[in-house]
Amino acid sequence: MAAANSGMRKRVVILGGGFGGIHTAMGLGKLPLDVTLVDRKNHHTFQPLLYQVALAVLSPAEIAQPIRSILRDYPNIEVLMDEATNFNLDEHRVMLKSGAELEYDYLVVATGSTHSYFGKDEWAKLAPGLKTLEDATEIRRRVLLAFELAEREMVESGKHPPLKFVVIGGGPTGVELAGAISDIAKLYMTKDFRHITPSQAEVLILEGSPNILAAYPPDLQVKAAQQLADLGVKIRTGSHVTDIQPGYVMVGEERIDAVVTLWAAGVQASPLGKLMGLEVDRRGCVMVDEHLNPKGRPEIFICGDLAHVEQDGKQVPGVAQPAMQMGDFVAKRIARLTAQRFGSDGTGVEKGFRYFDKGDMATIGRKAAVAKIEWPFKAHWSGFPAWLTWLVVHIFFLIGFRNRFSVFRQWAYTYLFLNDGARLITGSQELPGWVAQEGVAEPLPGKALDLGSPKSN
Amino acid sequence: MAAANSGMRKRVVILGGGFGGIHTAMGLGKLPLDVTLVDRKNHHTFQPLLYQVALAVLSPAEIAQPIRSILRDYPNIEVLMDEATNFNLDEHRVMLKSGAELEYDYLVVATGSTHSYFGKDEWAKLAPGLKTLEDATEIRRRVLLAFELAEREMVESGKHPPLKFVVIGGGPTGVELAGAISDIAKLYMTKDFRHITPSQAEVLILEGSPNILAAYPPDLQVKAAQQLADLGVKIRTGSHVTDIQPGYVMVGEERIDAVVTLWAAGVQASPLGKLMGLEVDRRGCVMVDEHLNPKGRPEIFICGDLAHVEQDGKQVPGVAQPAMQMGDFVAKRIARLTAQRFGSDGTGVEKGFRYFDKGDMATIGRKAAVAKIEWPFKAHWSGFPAWLTWLVVHIFFLIGFRNRFSVFRQWAYTYLFLNDGARLITGSQELPGWVAQEGVAEPLPGKALDLGSPKSN
Repeated sequence: MAAANSGMRKRVVILGGGFGGIHTAMGLGKLPLDVTLVDRKNHHTFQPLLYQVALAVLSPAEIAQPIRSILRDYPNIEVLMDEATNFNLDEHRVMLKSGAELEYDYLVVATGSTHSYFGKDEWAKLAPGLKTLEDATEIRRRVLLAFELAEREMVESGKHPPLKFVVIGGGPTGVELAGAISDIAKLYMTKDFRHITPSQAEVLILEGSPNILAAYPPDLQVKAAQQLADLGVKIRTGSHVTDIQPGYVMVGEERIDAVVTLWAAGVQASPLGKLMGLEVDRRGCVMVDEHLNPKGRPEIFICGDLAHVEQDGKQVPGVAQPAMQMGDFVAKRIARLTAQRFGSDGTGVEKGFRYFDKGDMATIGRKAAVAKIEWPFKAHWSGFPAWLTWLVVHIFFLIGFRNRFSVFRQWAYTYLFLNDGARLITGSQELPGWVAQEGVAEPLPGKALDLGSPKSN
Repeated sequence: MAAANSGMRKRVVILGGGFGGIHTAMGLGKLPLDVTLVDRKNHHTFQPLLYQVALAVLSPAEIAQPIRSILRDYPNIEVLMDEATNFNLDEHRVMLKSGAELEYDYLVVATGSTHSYFGKDEWAKLAPGLKTLEDATEIRRRVLLAFELAEREMVESGKHPPLKFVVIGGGPTGVELAGAISDIAKLYMTKDFRHITPSQAEVLILEGSPNILAAYPPDLQVKAAQQLADLGVKIRTGSHVTDIQPGYVMVGEERIDAVVTLWAAGVQASPLGKLMGLEVDRRGCVMVDEHLNPKGRPEIFICGDLAHVEQDGKQVPGVAQPAMQMGDFVAKRIARLTAQRFGSDGTGVEKGFRYFDKGDMATIGRKAAVAKIEWPFKAHWSGFPAWLTWLVVHIFFLIGFRNRFSVFRQWAYTYLFLNDGARLITGSQELPGWVAQEGVAEPLPGKALDLGSPKSN
């Protein structure tokens, strides 16, 4: 049975509660349409700050909010915690995992993207990626646990494996994770341990292409590399990982030890595009026209990371800003198509979607960043000014989140006073790399003893 | 190898980072002793507020803090995330899970208690208890998920199993969980769902003994029962659960449906008492003398829930206050025994431990409680005054926690504005009761349809 529908009102089904789906839903709120938003999680996650949860600066509840709460004030919107498993596009029906079926007049698919291990799915357990709150708490667990296990081994045997953290992938996520791990080790943890010297931890970024932050202009790539070097983060570009094992990764024939390995390399689109039988690119993104419709399906809209949109000869990137703008566009377009009024004309909806790029930025540790600013003026910033910009922009984007002030306060507190953040380890105490290290990876005695020497700071 | 030890300094090993262990450690901080605190978690948990994490009012990081951070300023204390697995009491050695061994001059065992399923360990997965952050997030997941699944089933089939929550055990934890579930259902969730009526959820406490809150005086038991009734919580005393299955529990021959079952009934001491070969009572608590030493072991102290201490013919209860006081006592006693000065004499340490009972309280929902006050005056309070007392006392106890003000703000916000708290579902979307419900538990059509009727509030 489809969701309750009062006669002539058009039904809109939105799949996905990320930036695209939430913006579509909010744009349709209070219009005489029946909207159902389906997501397999009960919460919307503010993904740009997920790495701060992973590195224990923020708590999950500070960057996530139940979708029901966000949309509570729109009586025409209902939320289902469920998952699309099949479609009948000709009959305008979506089948859900629970067995329910939803009929739609308009369908918005905004199910985003996930990690791609390039077919090596067995790597997922050894090198977690960062897309969900669960991913973030798992990364936090592994990073914090590595220090605990090293301390424990120092007490047991007077040595421990070198604290080497490997981040695979030098995009914004990889750079942010690497910088934050270095911060944790060098700034926050030095007073906490008696036997190990956390500041001697090493962080290495392995990037397959010739440069980190490939989407950024060359001057900012150089600046970012310099700022990472200042934090002690090592970078190896042109390094393709050929294998991941507990305790190490392989780059060709070379073995690189790693107590914790993180994955920030590949991204693939949600499988729904393929499942719907639509034309997709090699990453599974759905090819859409200027109105974000797949070919021959004017009642279907694709939003956010899942959409392959070309603009000025380049593909619009799969980040938060375009997803929000696509959501806003789709809501206006559906309102227009269903003959709803939405203020005066001239909204540009007829002309098609156009991504208005205000810029991009990536943080590097706790007081540096690179920012490619496109609006209101064009500039390339780096260092502390870029970081401040990043801070203001992200707090601004947190509008609508109950925790905007809480997050700001938490940041201020953590950054200024080097406070504990949310450095909790929950779940298992096993670390895949560590267990294997006992048998597989011989600790290098020299380095291990070096790491274990009395602390000088 | 034992922990680093500088010559003549006495070594103290503390097992457990709960109230007893932390208070012992802080009491020994800055004395010329080498102290090692061992806990299998990296954090101390403020257990009296754990139920608020379980019911999504607070976040884990708001009631837990890394043990390393708490003890950071004491250079003579080291912290190990590890677990005692064996002892050689004659040689004064503790063996840890990692393989490390610690030698001690004084050993403090404060490893607390855990759930007891009375030998039915298979119940643990079906009816989680509440002792750790992991337990709390699991309970949160199940309770919130039940509402989501009900909404989903209403869309699919127009009916859903009655939202019945069963709490086994009517002690303070059971009463607090039951009241909080009722609050969530009746106050916070009513605006969030379109198809189900969350306020029609039913909460039932099953208590084996004749009264809930057995440790409280009869007048407060009656008041508590009245306040629970006002919240719509049902209580069945003298009801012994004989079986727990996915979707229901059995009380003798009677079957009681339950979409979520929680365990707040039995508690047993940490197994370390038995493992050490010490004399224990039937719950595994170690029999100790007035100095908290087990018989013939003046160098070993037992602290907190693990200690069986008789006072005025009654056993000192296994709650936070006595654990803290025991920790303080043991620290002073060890300082005295090692001939350290700790202010003037007359601390009472020679006379032995005596629990100074300031009273007990349990909350019932968001604005009621019962309080048995023993100090600074004797009184029995209930209702809102008791709740206010509870609030002040708990905020006072949170001193030392970085998040005291954050918790207060969060409470105020949540209580005053019925805000979202931290209502996130993470982890699996399966609910043991729910899966089985499809095949095992026929939904009662009448009740289910009734629950699914259009909301009136």
